[in-house]
Amino acid sequence: MRESLTGNLLIAQSGGPTAAINSSVSGIIVEAKQQSKVGSIYGAVNGILGVLNEELVDLRQEQSSTISMLRKTPSAALGSCRYQLCEDDYSRLLQVFVAHDISYFLYAGGNDSMDTAHKVAQLASERNYGLNVIGVPKTVDNDLMVTDHCPGYGSVARFNAIAVRDSGLDTEAIYTTDTVKIIETMGRDSGWITASTALGKDGVDSAPHLIYLPERPFVTTRFLADVKSIYDRLGRVVICVCEGLRDEKGEFVKASAKQVDTDKFGHAQLGGVGDYLVNLVSENLKIKARCDKPGTIQRVSMTCASQIDLDEAYLVGQVAISQAVAGESDKMVTLIRKSNEPYQCETGIVELEKVALRTKKVPNEFISKESNFVSKQFLEYAKPLIGGPLAEYAHLVRKTVERRLSARS
Amino acid sequence: MRESLTGNLLIAQSGGPTAAINSSVSGIIVEAKQQSKVGSIYGAVNGILGVLNEELVDLRQEQSSTISMLRKTPSAALGSCRYQLCEDDYSRLLQVFVAHDISYFLYAGGNDSMDTAHKVAQLASERNYGLNVIGVPKTVDNDLMVTDHCPGYGSVARFNAIAVRDSGLDTEAIYTTDTVKIIETMGRDSGWITASTALGKDGVDSAPHLIYLPERPFVTTRFLADVKSIYDRLGRVVICVCEGLRDEKGEFVKASAKQVDTDKFGHAQLGGVGDYLVNLVSENLKIKARCDKPGTIQRVSMTCASQIDLDEAYLVGQVAISQAVAGESDKMVTLIRKSNEPYQCETGIVELEKVALRTKKVPNEFISKESNFVSKQFLEYAKPLIGGPLAEYAHLVRKTVERRLSARS
Repeated sequence: MRESLTGNLLIAQSGGPTAAINSSVSGIIVEAKQQSKVGSIYGAVNGILGVLNEELVDLRQEQSSTISMLRKTPSAALGSCRYQLCEDDYSRLLQVFVAHDISYFLYAGGNDSMDTAHKVAQLASERNYGLNVIGVPKTVDNDLMVTDHCPGYGSVARFNAIAVRDSGLDTEAIYTTDTVKIIETMGRDSGWITASTALGKDGVDSAPHLIYLPERPFVTTRFLADVKSIYDRLGRVVICVCEGLRDEKGEFVKASAKQVDTDKFGHAQLGGVGDYLVNLVSENLKIKARCDKPGTIQRVSMTCASQIDLDEAYLVGQVAISQAVAGESDKMVTLIRKSNEPYQCETGIVELEKVALRTKKVPNEFISKESNFVSKQFLEYAKPLIGGPLAEYAHLVRKTVERRLSARS
Repeated sequence: MRESLTGNLLIAQSGGPTAAINSSVSGIIVEAKQQSKVGSIYGAVNGILGVLNEELVDLRQEQSSTISMLRKTPSAALGSCRYQLCEDDYSRLLQVFVAHDISYFLYAGGNDSMDTAHKVAQLASERNYGLNVIGVPKTVDNDLMVTDHCPGYGSVARFNAIAVRDSGLDTEAIYTTDTVKIIETMGRDSGWITASTALGKDGVDSAPHLIYLPERPFVTTRFLADVKSIYDRLGRVVICVCEGLRDEKGEFVKASAKQVDTDKFGHAQLGGVGDYLVNLVSENLKIKARCDKPGTIQRVSMTCASQIDLDEAYLVGQVAISQAVAGESDKMVTLIRKSNEPYQCETGIVELEKVALRTKKVPNEFISKESNFVSKQFLEYAKPLIGGPLAEYAHLVRKTVERRLSARS
């Protein structure tokens, strides 16, 4: 641990917005105000770009009611970016840190952002500039190494569990016409988000019926057989797929660019994997299918946010600044699960280089052996993260009235 | 008004599921139990198909806690259908009504279902069978004639207002990479649902920025000019479009079937209007765009339901059975707005033939003169229906820290 510094704090947010990342910023600010070694509290507008552009805002000027309300405000209040540092940027970054007497730099984001934070920490160290850099984990993708899970994930998981349960009831009601429903979730490289839809399943025959993750190659014949088997049994199928699904050759499962190019009318862009599978089912099984794709709505839904997620996001923010002031640097705060029932989590800390640019995939034991659903272990892992049970719905017993006529001809 | 009947009640649900249609069924059952002239209370499984197939369930056997919970259960608990009656069906229907001594038939649905109800009422009348038929309005599309609005609409409107507000914050945060967002809502023939996204706009520069309804022909050049104009001013654009958008020739705005057919690789199905516009923007304006398409999730979201909508759905159910028992038939219950502030609505009743198969479009005065947004009058009309204001979010004042360096080179 480095010697303890005194100076200003700079906070920045990066990558895809979430329901919980502002809660982390709220936790950082509230805790920073308690720390006598922290002078000014600055925010960079649009992540590291705001540092490069010297676009800083003074967060001590915000009302405390605003800071408190950040705990319930989705997206990224300071603005975000996706930006990879290039060689020319380093001197500029250091200039900005020096000019504003920054001693603490906190960066909230995913594995790319942790790489940026790591590079900033190394730069400061090489140039002998006293800067404590701490990464604040944030990603709906839940794919950061070492930490048990990532703030942002519990909320997107709750959104998807609710959406798929509701949408499953929809299919159950109208299966006489809308028979197959495909729900495409986010997740470019890992299937954590798609897997979370299983938390919406509240009965053996209820949705989702099939779940496909990018951790397993997508095999068309097996997929069609899976769909047909459920369809033959129930007359309806709800299928959740990851936008990042890949085939056995490692290529994204969607109508390929080649197909589009051959279209002499020009440049029509085919839909993603959801639309592709709708077509596959319609063509091959002659069953009507449709696709829902909540897109970015899923990652910033505050109405469906997990309270546990919001609270943990706040906590990692608090811990991040405490650790920075205590002298830690080039580290990321982690969550460590202590027990599952009752659910208890503590924070820890890990070197940024163990997290930067790496992706935690959904492990084998969380995927069903048929590769078309999740396992019981996954449900045990994910259930506490969504912050309590879903709302209870009515289920009619549907006591049959005795027939008085012969069957309809 | 016909003479008053005594006998059994049959309830059925039809068309697309909603957040509110079960609330109507709950209202019907609770009220029916108060009516001494109502004997058994039956439900038909999957709408008129359940009548034809004599698949009836006894709703007096359900626990009253279940009936009460229907007020908060989305989709269609009795099952739904999309089925057009054919000539052969009429005798069968009458057989079923006679066999089960049905005196009251209540059908919840949209304009197709009101046509079915109308035909059933006419059939009974022609054959001198005593049957009082009342239509219970239900459609997220909000396109039934005569009634001020339709149960189901307030909830889908609230979902979309919330989704677009949240998703707009997302774009605001990450506009440095995700610049244009297109949100495709439901609505085949009318733009009521798409229009409701405007209720999510909480500032002059906040989302949505552009709204396109099927009531106006879509003109590509004008659309691109609209998008560019907002982009040049704000650096980001959130656009809400209706799945049923049509061009000047009346054809759906999406990559046409012809394009797909010319693809020698076969039968790839292009996405809908949202994906099409993503491509249009990327190709012509060279700006990165993405599409969210909540699909059926929007119509069955209980988490985002409007309490006013759920309550009105319950009320029209109660009124439907009261009117049937009082001797009305071949009618639909309507909602009549008495005042806007405070919002007050009463019920009325109208002949089914004035509603059947007709579509109420969004009127001219509800659409902006540029045809790319809604008017103030629309907002006044729709605002009370979503059941109270959206949750408050934090807005940072972002007090700028004075620059100490020259601009980044």
